[in-house]
Amino acid sequence: MSVAPKRGEAHALPTEERRGVYRAIHERRDVRSQFLPDEIPDEVVARLLDAAHHAPSVGFMQPWSFIVIRDCGVRATVRDAFLQERARAAALYDEPRRAQFLALKLEGILDAPLNLCVTCDSTRGGPHVLGRSAIPDTDLYSTCCAIQNFWLAARAEGIGVGWVSIVQPEELKRILEIPELVIPVAYLCVGYVSDFSGTPDLESAGWRARLSLADLVYEDRWGQPETRLRTAFSAMGGAK
Amino acid sequence: MSVAPKRGEAHALPTEERRGVYRAIHERRDVRSQFLPDEIPDEVVARLLDAAHHAPSVGFMQPWSFIVIRDCGVRATVRDAFLQERARAAALYDEPRRAQFLALKLEGILDAPLNLCVTCDSTRGGPHVLGRSAIPDTDLYSTCCAIQNFWLAARAEGIGVGWVSIVQPEELKRILEIPELVIPVAYLCVGYVSDFSGTPDLESAGWRARLSLADLVYEDRWGQPETRLRTAFSAMGGAK
Repeated sequence: MSVAPKRGEAHALPTEERRGVYRAIHERRDVRSQFLPDEIPDEVVARLLDAAHHAPSVGFMQPWSFIVIRDCGVRATVRDAFLQERARAAALYDEPRRAQFLALKLEGILDAPLNLCVTCDSTRGGPHVLGRSAIPDTDLYSTCCAIQNFWLAARAEGIGVGWVSIVQPEELKRILEIPELVIPVAYLCVGYVSDFSGTPDLESAGWRARLSLADLVYEDRWGQPETRLRTAFSAMGGAK
Repeated sequence: MSVAPKRGEAHALPTEERRGVYRAIHERRDVRSQFLPDEIPDEVVARLLDAAHHAPSVGFMQPWSFIVIRDCGVRATVRDAFLQERARAAALYDEPRRAQFLALKLEGILDAPLNLCVTCDSTRGGPHVLGRSAIPDTDLYSTCCAIQNFWLAARAEGIGVGWVSIVQPEELKRILEIPELVIPVAYLCVGYVSDFSGTPDLESAGWRARLSLADLVYEDRWGQPETRLRTAFSAMGGAK
């Protein structure tokens, strides 16, 4: 007697492959301190960029471009721009938060062997991109999906990625000669690592705690607590 | 005689797990037509939301919330808002592009058993979020990384996701009672599927073609062709 397969799960990935997806998601880190200088083989860099290129994009516009930066002079200039912005940001905090902020390592621009600027060209795909009429920012949203693909593929390869957002976009555009209408969405430091931390750096440093997932989930409308998933969240160990 | 392990790859996931990550990335689709009505078990929904919650976020601000929508009345109202915006968007195209646009199936709001609105609260984390000083939009960027985590975990579970961006955000906010300062970033249709298409719907429909990855990669500055990776891209079969 044959048993009908559970219809829903027919297209699930095999157990080990599925575990890989969750491991990449949960063991991914925003890396700043653990970069090794080891060069990343070209075929691996190509795989990571190809993963990014296979992100979803609004109207299939694929608005992203990738500037691979290996040149030390360019990287040093970007690091100067980071230091400038970090000083400006530090002034926004009162003590002791300011001292705590300045003590954090927030980039690995020169430590990582490879930097990557991911950009978004809002004009790609013409004036009326399918799906952008109501939410023009969806081109930026697509680019972020590409960045996350890159990040997770990198984790799978044992490669760390750190996103440096403490740089003025106008400075990045000047340094990397990015055209007026193109937005530098992310500046990433990329390299093999000595290890992946078990928790995010900002959590370990006591900067900010992880929120409870159950508190972030509503049902049918904002503010209405979702009760059905509570048991499942608890079974996951509090959804850390 | 012991052979030193290749240092860089020490933290790579095992082969099968790594393959899972790439499979999820390459076999993920923006699903509109293939939804099955089969209910998704609570523990699976919880895992997907937990995957989203483990996205990177600027200053660890975790700006996202999730509205899980099962109610058919709410979903029908959202679908009306979609139809209204679709009509508005159609008027932007000339024929025959307009007819082609109107013939596309662009949402599965009522077909999928579960809808999900992912929001971004820009005020979470206080006035000075670490890493947001130069690029305030990084809260939205973080939310998109969470959406992509959700999407890839769903693919691993055999669950399809379709992002409906053809809805006015103000309409969504009214229907879902979302507060003024919170942005509805994505409205997702979520469900098991009869199959995952081999190529994106818009590619199959001849709406737009996939761009060549090699053309999107520069070296050290915008416009300077990256030559080092060409061989690797070719070896990947033209990086489709």
